[in-house]
Order: sequence, then C-alpha cells, then structure tokens
Amino acid sequence: MTIKDIAKACGVGVSTVSRVLNNRPDVSPEVRARVLEVVESTGYIPNNSARDLGRSQTDAIGVVVRGTGNLFFSEVIKTIALEIDRSGCTMVPRYIGSDDDEVKAGAILEREKKLRGLIFLGGRFDYTPAELSLIGVPYVCCSFTNCFGSLSEAEFSSVSIDDYRTAYLAVEKLIERGHRRIAALIPSCSDHSISELRYNGYRDALRDHGIAFDPDLVMENGGCFGMPETYQGMRTLLERGAGFTAAFVLSDTTAIAAIKALEDAGRRVPEDVSVIAIDGLEISGYTSPTLSTMVQPAEEMGRETVRLLLEVLNGGENRHVRLETAFRTGASIRTL
Amino acid sequence: MTIKDIAKACGVGVSTVSRVLNNRPDVSPEVRARVLEVVESTGYIPNNSARDLGRSQTDAIGVVVRGTGNLFFSEVIKTIALEIDRSGCTMVPRYIGSDDDEVKAGAILEREKKLRGLIFLGGRFDYTPAELSLIGVPYVCCSFTNCFGSLSEAEFSSVSIDDYRTAYLAVEKLIERGHRRIAALIPSCSDHSISELRYNGYRDALRDHGIAFDPDLVMENGGCFGMPETYQGMRTLLERGAGFTAAFVLSDTTAIAAIKALEDAGRRVPEDVSVIAIDGLEISGYTSPTLSTMVQPAEEMGRETVRLLLEVLNGGENRHVRLETAFRTGASIRTL
Repeated sequence: MTIKDIAKACGVGVSTVSRVLNNRPDVSPEVRARVLEVVESTGYIPNNSARDLGRSQTDAIGVVVRGTGNLFFSEVIKTIALEIDRSGCTMVPRYIGSDDDEVKAGAILEREKKLRGLIFLGGRFDYTPAELSLIGVPYVCCSFTNCFGSLSEAEFSSVSIDDYRTAYLAVEKLIERGHRRIAALIPSCSDHSISELRYNGYRDALRDHGIAFDPDLVMENGGCFGMPETYQGMRTLLERGAGFTAAFVLSDTTAIAAIKALEDAGRRVPEDVSVIAIDGLEISGYTSPTLSTMVQPAEEMGRETVRLLLEVLNGGENRHVRLETAFRTGASIRTL
Repeated sequence: MTIKDIAKACGVGVSTVSRVLNNRPDVSPEVRARVLEVVESTGYIPNNSARDLGRSQTDAIGVVVRGTGNLFFSEVIKTIALEIDRSGCTMVPRYIGSDDDEVKAGAILEREKKLRGLIFLGGRFDYTPAELSLIGVPYVCCSFTNCFGSLSEAEFSSVSIDDYRTAYLAVEKLIERGHRRIAALIPSCSDHSISELRYNGYRDALRDHGIAFDPDLVMENGGCFGMPETYQGMRTLLERGAGFTAAFVLSDTTAIAAIKALEDAGRRVPEDVSVIAIDGLEISGYTSPTLSTMVQPAEEMGRETVRLLLEVLNGGENRHVRLETAFRTGASIRTL
C-alpha cells in the first residue's frame, strides 16, 4: 500500500493525501475525512522515518535559478512558488549567475537546507552521471533537459519546450514570408545548451528549405544572454556588411535589444529587417514594434515542474514533459 | 556582552559572528578561529533559547511578494535572495496578488514556517498597530513605508524611495521642458499606497509651478498596476479629448503600455506626447523610444532591506532608510 494507492482509493491526487497526512490547512474537511478514513481502513503507514526528522527538514524544495536577468524565469518562478506553497512544502530559492554551476549550487543548497527535492530553473544540457551524483534528492530540470548528456532518463525529470523544434518553426515563419537572408543572434553555437539547440533548429530550417547556410549571418554573443551584449552583437553584425532581411534572436529581451541596435543603425523593423524570437513575455506585446515570438507556456512549465517533483517525492517514476509553444503574431515581421 | 560586542572585538560584522556561531560553511578558517577565540575569552553566551529550537526553525526569513507581475520587484528579489543566503539564513518566498493582504499572508507564513523575520516586498502604507499585531517577528517594509498609518516608527523597519518626492521631480522634468498640459496615469488617487503618494507629488509639482490642476488629465486605472489596464486607461484618456503634451505614468512597464496606446492612436512619442515614469528597469533602456524614468536603486533596496532585518534580529533598533532616485534620460520626452 503506497500513498498512490490511497490517493486512487480516495479519488484525489497524491499531493492531497500528503497534505492531509502532514496536517496542512489547505484541504477541505470533507476530503480530509475521506482520506483519513481510507488511511485508517487500509492500515497505511506513512514513511515516518522521513517525517520524524521534523517537517522543517523534509518539506524544503530548493529552486536554483540560473541567470538572474531572465524575465521569462521571473514568470516561471511565480508559478513554482505558488505550486510549492499549495503542496504544503517550503520553497528555498537560490539565485546564481548564468555562468555559475547549478549542480554544485544545488548540492550545496541540498546539504545546507536539508532539501527533500530540487528544481533547476535553467542549466546545462550535458550532464554526466558522475556530476549529478552530487545530488542526493529527486530533481527536475525546468526549461531544459539533458539531450547532450549521458544521464539515464530514469534518473531525473524535466519540463521544457523542444528548443530545437521551436527555433526551427520560428525560422520557418520567416522563410514562409519570403525571407532567405536570415541572420541568427545567439549566445553561442556550441554551448551544449539552449543556444546550441536553437542554433541547430535555425540551421536545419534553412537547409530543409534549400537555403544555403552563410556563417557571416551568425552572430555569437560570447556566451552572454544579456541585452547589452546582444545590442553590441547586432551592431557588429551590421558592420560586417552581409545583407539580411530577417533575424532570429534567442529570446524576447535580447530581440528587443537587437531591434534597438537595428533602429540606432537606421534600419527599420520590420520594413528593412524582420525580427522573431522565443519567449512570449507580456512586455514584448507592448514594445514598438510588438514582437513576433514563439510563446513558451510559463505557467504550465512551472506547474508541471512542481507536479513532477511531487510525484517522484511520493514514489512515482521520473518523467520528461515537452510543452508546446504557440506563435504570437507581432508587428516585427513582414512578408517580402 | 552582545553579539555586536563580539563582532566589534573581532573586527568583523555581526552576520559573520552569527555564521560562525551557527557553524555555517561560508566563513574563512582564520575568521572562524578569531571569532571563536573571542567568544571563549569573553564568556559570551549565544541566545540559546532561540537556537535550541533548531536551526531550521530559526533561520527562515519570509519574503511576501505582493503584485506578481512587477518587473521591478524581480530585480529586488534577486538581491534579497543573495543577501539572505550570504547571512546564512533561509529565504522562504510567498507570492500574492496585488490586491491580496500581505499582513495576513505574512502572519500565516510566519506560523507555517516558524519564521525569524519577515520582509514585505510591496504593501499598503496605512497599517494600524492592531493589524500588525498579527506579526510576531521583526519585519521590514521593502519599497514602501507606513506614511498613512498609525504604527510607531519604532515598531518596524522600512527601505523605500520617497515616492512623493520622486513623482514631484519627474513631473518637474516635464515642466522644465515647457510642458503645462501634463496627464497622470495611475492606478488610484486615493489608495493610501504608492499611487496616492505619487499622485500627490504630481499635483504639488503642478501647483508649485503655477499650473492649474485639471481633473480631466488624471486617469485612474481602477486600482490596477497592469499593462492591459494602463493601455486601456490611456485610450480612454485620449477619447476624453482633453489635450495634453506630456504624461506622467506610475511605472516603467505601465509607461511602455501607455506609449503603445498613444502610438496606436496615432500620437508619436515624444513628438506629440512626452512620457516619463518611475522605476528604471534595464529593458526600458532598450524599448523604442527609450524611456525617460526615475531610477530606483533595486540592488541597494534589496541589500539595505536584508541589512536592516539582520540588525534587528541581532538586537538592533528598527530603522527607516530612504534611498535616492536618479533621473535616466531617455528618448521619450522632449522640450516644447
């Protein structure tokens, strides 16, 4: 008899049973009574060895946030916080720079705060089993997964979009509108991370549509995800002189910086250059021009992340969830 | 002999002594040895009644974040998180809506998580002693203070800008540039909160410069701090037909929404209407036009907030810190 069986017998979720067993307030009296009745009648014994350590040592969920300037993460964090609250657990955040090692930060946090589980919000995609052996609790990779690494899929959970495919689709939106000279502004083509995946999507979309790849149209921002670096990257790209009518940019905020660089150089968006990105922030629906972008479902990403972690904490298997993105039409692209 | 005396004798900060006494890893061996030597030689006895509750029950600092869409708060939260980490304490965040009651949320969080202290990031300015008696631990109001309320200044700490004065200065920037028909877009003129203070600054700046107040130029957004509401507010204001050459908008994100509403209605910024705001987000330095705005020091605000809370937790007095803002010139205002 596991907590899952109890949940099934009661017709409620595992986290509801967990809340009742931990005497949390956020359960209705009816549900509480039903769960306790089933618990009693089945003779279910909660895992007291964990509970006896004291709630404060076992309900902490660490959230390592990598890349502190990421506005998309700000949207995801809110949902993660709300969902962790709802589960009765305690969220313990730790912010690290985009070049910092999230695995080491997570391992330290785990030991310092006696975590039950961990969420990595942003990280590398090329973990080895040896590196991740530092982590002794279940963890979920949020917004990324381990497609360049050698970890077994059974060892961890992940919630992300398909970065390769989303970039492919974004570039296809430009191609469909007649663009063939399409630039790419990304932190790195070979970081074994989000920008390499999106770069591959860009290249393959060109290839599949019979467009020759031109390295002069690719601008790497030295691995940086920031707006100043992307602004400068676009200026440098323009100075190269390789003509282009469209640009695929890694994220909404960097696309806004790229648009400013274009306008400061006398290029109008979208009249002279079309710009498309990935994220779908609220604010990029208000900038001028509004941004055409592939929307990542921030709330769903946060909600699924916490759901997967709670499942594993309650005895479930690790899972990998890929979320769909949706194209949001803006005024930043035009048909040639 | 207090922890402050120990710190002074060792030539280190109170938080360093606290870290040594709590056996935290982030202290150098030299400093640790020096502190322990002084502790031993002076016979200092740490406050064990608190420590004996167990570290996990006494190092938690709750952070109630009010208004989950606030990008300025996102910048402050990062610093709060880093500084709480640095102190060896554990940050426990809770996100609530901009209409939710932060005091009630804080009181619940305090009981649920056995907090040592609380930070309110955003909140009302009109607390009564009875309301705040729900809170049993030291707390700091971050980004606001209690200027409409009846709480004694000794009962709490706060870190904020002078909202009234900052709005006054922003409107003065417009007046200096020859504007006399100046609109105000704010959530509310009488919310006993941040928008009432800023509205008062707007009115008094007009008055002090001999400009007659025109209620037709004031647009309240039904108490909402969001971009869609502000966009609609600007559209409604334009439909009223009261002419204006400039607008003061509550925040950077709402100013970006207001600029879009102006442009969608065929008004150019700044040629037809100048726009100024308060916040100084990084992103509003990249939007088109770049925003002229009064910059709140987000990092300093976060740092001071945690510093004040730690001071009080270590036996210090409550304090109230007002931070300076700085004008950031953008392309959204012009001289008539």
